[in-house]
Amino acid sequence: MAKNVGSEGSFTTKDYQDPPPAPLIDPAELTQWSFYRALIAEFIATLLFLYITVLTVIGYKSESDPAKNADPCSGVGILGIAWAFGGMIFILVYCTAGISGGHINPAVTFGLFLARKVSLIRAVMYMVAQCLGAICGVGLVKAFQSAYYHRYDGGANMLSDGYSKSVGLSAEIIGTFVLVYTVFSATDPKRNARDSHVPVLAPLPIGFAVFMVHLATIPITGTGINPARSLGAAVIFNQDKAWKDHWIFWVGPFIGAAIAAFYHQFILRAGAAKALGSFRSSTSQA
Amino acid sequence: MAKNVGSEGSFTTKDYQDPPPAPLIDPAELTQWSFYRALIAEFIATLLFLYITVLTVIGYKSESDPAKNADPCSGVGILGIAWAFGGMIFILVYCTAGISGGHINPAVTFGLFLARKVSLIRAVMYMVAQCLGAICGVGLVKAFQSAYYHRYDGGANMLSDGYSKSVGLSAEIIGTFVLVYTVFSATDPKRNARDSHVPVLAPLPIGFAVFMVHLATIPITGTGINPARSLGAAVIFNQDKAWKDHWIFWVGPFIGAAIAAFYHQFILRAGAAKALGSFRSSTSQA
Amino acid sequence: MAKNVGSEGSFTTKDYQDPPPAPLIDPAELTQWSFYRALIAEFIATLLFLYITVLTVIGYKSESDPAKNADPCSGVGILGIAWAFGGMIFILVYCTAGISGGHINPAVTFGLFLARKVSLIRAVMYMVAQCLGAICGVGLVKAFQSAYYHRYDGGANMLSDGYSKSVGLSAEIIGTFVLVYTVFSATDPKRNARDSHVPVLAPLPIGFAVFMVHLATIPITGTGINPARSLGAAVIFNQDKAWKDHWIFWVGPFIGAAIAAFYHQFILRAGAAKALGSFRSSTSQA
Amino acid sequence: MAKNVGSEGSFTTKDYQDPPPAPLIDPAELTQWSFYRALIAEFIATLLFLYITVLTVIGYKSESDPAKNADPCSGVGILGIAWAFGGMIFILVYCTAGISGGHINPAVTFGLFLARKVSLIRAVMYMVAQCLGAICGVGLVKAFQSAYYHRYDGGANMLSDGYSKSVGLSAEIIGTFVLVYTVFSATDPKRNARDSHVPVLAPLPIGFAVFMVHLATIPITGTGINPARSLGAAVIFNQDKAWKDHWIFWVGPFIGAAIAAFYHQFILRAGAAKALGSFRSSTSQA
Repeated sequence: MAKNVGSEGSFTTKDYQDPPPAPLIDPAELTQWSFYRALIAEFIATLLFLYITVLTVIGYKSESDPAKNADPCSGVGILGIAWAFGGMIFILVYCTAGISGGHINPAVTFGLFLARKVSLIRAVMYMVAQCLGAICGVGLVKAFQSAYYHRYDGGANMLSDGYSKSVGLSAEIIGTFVLVYTVFSATDPKRNARDSHVPVLAPLPIGFAVFMVHLATIPITGTGINPARSLGAAVIFNQDKAWKDHWIFWVGPFIGAAIAAFYHQFILRAGAAKALGSFRSSTSQA
Repeated sequence: MAKNVGSEGSFTTKDYQDPPPAPLIDPAELTQWSFYRALIAEFIATLLFLYITVLTVIGYKSESDPAKNADPCSGVGILGIAWAFGGMIFILVYCTAGISGGHINPAVTFGLFLARKVSLIRAVMYMVAQCLGAICGVGLVKAFQSAYYHRYDGGANMLSDGYSKSVGLSAEIIGTFVLVYTVFSATDPKRNARDSHVPVLAPLPIGFAVFMVHLATIPITGTGINPARSLGAAVIFNQDKAWKDHWIFWVGPFIGAAIAAFYHQFILRAGAAKALGSFRSSTSQA
Repeated sequence: MAKNVGSEGSFTTKDYQDPPPAPLIDPAELTQWSFYRALIAEFIATLLFLYITVLTVIGYKSESDPAKNADPCSGVGILGIAWAFGGMIFILVYCTAGISGGHINPAVTFGLFLARKVSLIRAVMYMVAQCLGAICGVGLVKAFQSAYYHRYDGGANMLSDGYSKSVGLSAEIIGTFVLVYTVFSATDPKRNARDSHVPVLAPLPIGFAVFMVHLATIPITGTGINPARSLGAAVIFNQDKAWKDHWIFWVGPFIGAAIAAFYHQFILRAGAAKALGSFRSSTSQA
Repeated sequence: MAKNVGSEGSFTTKDYQDPPPAPLIDPAELTQWSFYRALIAEFIATLLFLYITVLTVIGYKSESDPAKNADPCSGVGILGIAWAFGGMIFILVYCTAGISGGHINPAVTFGLFLARKVSLIRAVMYMVAQCLGAICGVGLVKAFQSAYYHRYDGGANMLSDGYSKSVGLSAEIIGTFVLVYTVFSATDPKRNARDSHVPVLAPLPIGFAVFMVHLATIPITGTGINPARSLGAAVIFNQDKAWKDHWIFWVGPFIGAAIAAFYHQFILRAGAAKALGSFRSSTSQA
């Protein structure tokens, strides 16, 4: 695990070139079918994500409801719910990575935009597609589970009793940081060149990051870390208790994604070193 | 995750050639041992799939039966059942991919036939082998678990109380769409050329797709998304309540597979672009 | 998943050569340090396998014992136990594959011996090392958990009430077949050449196969499918109820491994085709 | 799985060269930004590790507390806690492997130092960064979960009732051995050359090793196998019962890591063979 430490300075100057940053506005991509195809893929993927996960949440609560004399141990448990969120991200990133980049999450799109990996117009359009997909996905669940949907709060993200707004916001920030940091690490173009002993099984750790954050923060906020997921559930559930603290699930993830983008680009990718005057690795790249 | 967006038009014309579509009827394959070997592999794989999964279902219900004064928390839980279905698909696709393509599911075979990846005769014979294997697999479970098999409904797919036929059918359609969409994404021949950062660990996401769909729809239909699985359980259980809505578990998966094939071939693989007049990428391939 | 079907006959004659079968007795290997190192690795791996898994079993029963007023839902559950067995096989095969081949199971060694992939002397010595390792591993658990070890039956494999000897034997045969079939598929030297879309992540499906079989057959026999595991637990537990049906956990796995070796070598690897007169692919290899 | 056995002696002399051992003190690395970046990465990774895992522990206990009339089956269970520890190590090793080597654990750093894979100064600085990160991570949990943190013992490692100090120490030694042995196996530079059939998916088995050890030893000590994790929880919890046996969680992991380093370097990597006079493979490397 410590094979390459210390030898990087000489290495990067030889084998590796960063791709140029994405333009802020790229009119050319609006003329390509691949751009609209990517929007469709993001829409469908976010729809499936919300459909499967919220259906798992409602199904679990319905199966283990003591008011129905159900066995409280029936159902997939919170562990199963966490698996549903993480596992769906794994397969959907796997399926859409080659089409749209596999964001499925406005916070991920925002982080990649800040790192100049997608253009502004693409970032905005992706977020719209993700939010529409999420609303449709939760809508399907409501249609299928009409008897239980409202009784079990519709899978909406809310602050649990006993937690303050600042705790909820902080939990969303750190949770999204874990996710977006993993996304940056998994898709770092420098990675392939440098770490031959670290396989590029990118979608799996990204899915696991989502799984982990759900294990930790479901008791606090139900775990957002994805504004489209929170919006979709809130729109379809549409009750005051879902809208009351809804801003947390936009502000938190965006701040977390921004910190992750900063951490990856400026700390880990030697941006800070350059700023501090260590021009060793930048001379031959300029 | 956003590395290759926008540059595909020029790419596909250079590095990639689609394989020709499979012929509708290919008499030559009937003379090859590899064809019959593939049928045997599909038969054995589906047999093992049903054996392990239905045994897990019956064992769980027997271990946690309150009528036996059993601890309701004993047994592997619905989460364990979902793992059994998903995990078996993972290892069986892994084991049979090189022999038969690793379908183990008539809906997958149907989707690949629609995309012209297998011939008609191969598709039909695979489905027969899968159904026979499923019947034998559930038969083994009945023989081993004679004391509990009927008491716990034999692992048969049925509509749960409180859900309409249309909900059950829709759940099967979307669930199978998730599975077959993952299968197409994982086996896309374009993938290797284009997405060097997405590893080809194909059987793992396919298994996870099955796992995910089971988490979400076990409370609704017990989760079919595989007509052979539903048929095998119904034939061996053979009671009215298993046969009553059995058509759902054939019609739903076939519709879902057809939509997934259409989505992959026409939307994601630029078929629609061609139809709409964007002949940019097709000229050099014609 | 259907990419290579039908084209294999011409393929195998060009790109692939089977390694020669291992000699029955190879005196040269007795003079090599690598042989003794492999025995040490098998010993240590089987010791760790039994230590972790039986400790998980005892810990689970102790945490969820109603007689201790414990919450019956505490502990890792049967799902956790199944993960312990499957996960340990995953990491131990991963760690020892390059040293000893990563058998950790006399049934696997027996199957690979039948397929002439290891010599007789190596097979026998591996089994001895595995059994000694298993005994030491369970011995450690007994030493650590003296208060609970006997109360919870020491992790020994036994037929559960209500199951006949023939059911237990059959469950062991099929379970071991699933495992050894996966081992053969994952280590098939033909695989790399033929299936570029199936990654060689061999230890993961092997671990999952063990996980799956445990989900299905823990309620019947506690799941052996590994004679060293059953022997180690029986020797340290050493009570009549553990020894009574102990033969099942040797005969079953060895029969299952033999069937898997036959299935892989004669059905899937075209041995049968050759015997039936289809010499197409064998001419250029002879 | 038995492909390469017996042929290694001649192999190693041809295709493989060990990297030279790391110097004990390497002043040059202190002048490199990559060194300080590695410290930051270790600090952040250990912070996130403790934050997610201890939050999962506290959240589980709060959700399933009978004193709050909570359903005892709520919460992620001990299985979920074990997943949190193992899964976080998987993603954090994946994310930091290319930056710092991905230790996230003083015991791993100690083992790699003994094997001369990191310098003394790097090892010491890593441990300091890990311990500070762990303290900050648990501090965040305490701030977020002020209502429950102390009631549920703050995620601190302690000997459970009924287990002696020697059992706890031994459990920590063997548990850390499993982890560090997996780390050495996964990062063996010889591996790539020799085992083409064993994929280099290094972070996954390392994460699974942590998962497995938690399944087995949570009932005994809560599972340390990481002195930074134990220290961080003890510093923030800061009660006598956490400090009383705290030495176990430093001495145990360091002994286990040392045994693993010895086992890998001297037994598995033919060090012993050389010492015993078999100079076959060393002549051409000298």
